[in-house]
Amino acid sequence: MFVKQAATQASFSADRMTKSDLLRGEFLFAGLNSFEAGQWHAPHRHEGQDKLYVVLEGTGEVQIGGQTELLCAGDIALAPSGVVHAIRNPGPERLIVMTVMAPPPAARA
Amino acid sequence: MFVKQAATQASFSADRMTKSDLLRGEFLFAGLNSFEAGQWHAPHRHEGQDKLYVVLEGTGEVQIGGQTELLCAGDIALAPSGVVHAIRNPGPERLIVMTVMAPPPAARA
Repeated sequence: MFVKQAATQASFSADRMTKSDLLRGEFLFAGLNSFEAGQWHAPHRHEGQDKLYVVLEGTGEVQIGGQTELLCAGDIALAPSGVVHAIRNPGPERLIVMTVMAPPPAARA
Repeated sequence: MFVKQAATQASFSADRMTKSDLLRGEFLFAGLNSFEAGQWHAPHRHEGQDKLYVVLEGTGEVQIGGQTELLCAGDIALAPSGVVHAIRNPGPERLIVMTVMAPPPAARA
């Protein structure tokens, strides 16, 4: 139930954004989204689920609904249920973002 | 839906730990718990609610169930529904912890 230095759990792929699991409860899930420069998570929405972004390292261009902001470590954003959201790493550094989702997504295989 | 430099929203009291709201959705809530050296949040439990701790600044002695860990910035911990948890600032610095709760608590007056 403890994860020290959560950002060190990040993994990266040359092909696309990578997801890592951190902690899972009955009502929320915490994981990492890790982006090489130029990678992104395309616009999408979750009905019946909120997602909180917590930027840990690097810079992220975060779109929520009609608003886009450039976020860095220490910034947070909420993508409420049903609202289109996306995130992109403009570089040049790697981007590591913690995502907290409630309720939790189904466990990945 | 964006909060830049979330830790700057912290407020402190000489008397006790202080809570601040950050973002609220239908399924999760994010806020801050801010502690002067020596202050704590006494052991308690939430039935039907998970709480994620994300340490932003300082050092926190976090108890979850029978386990206690000393956490610093970048560390996280999950207090699952029904499990006793507590947090204390051993000092000497101020402690700022983001808490993410799902489902959200009732709005405070």
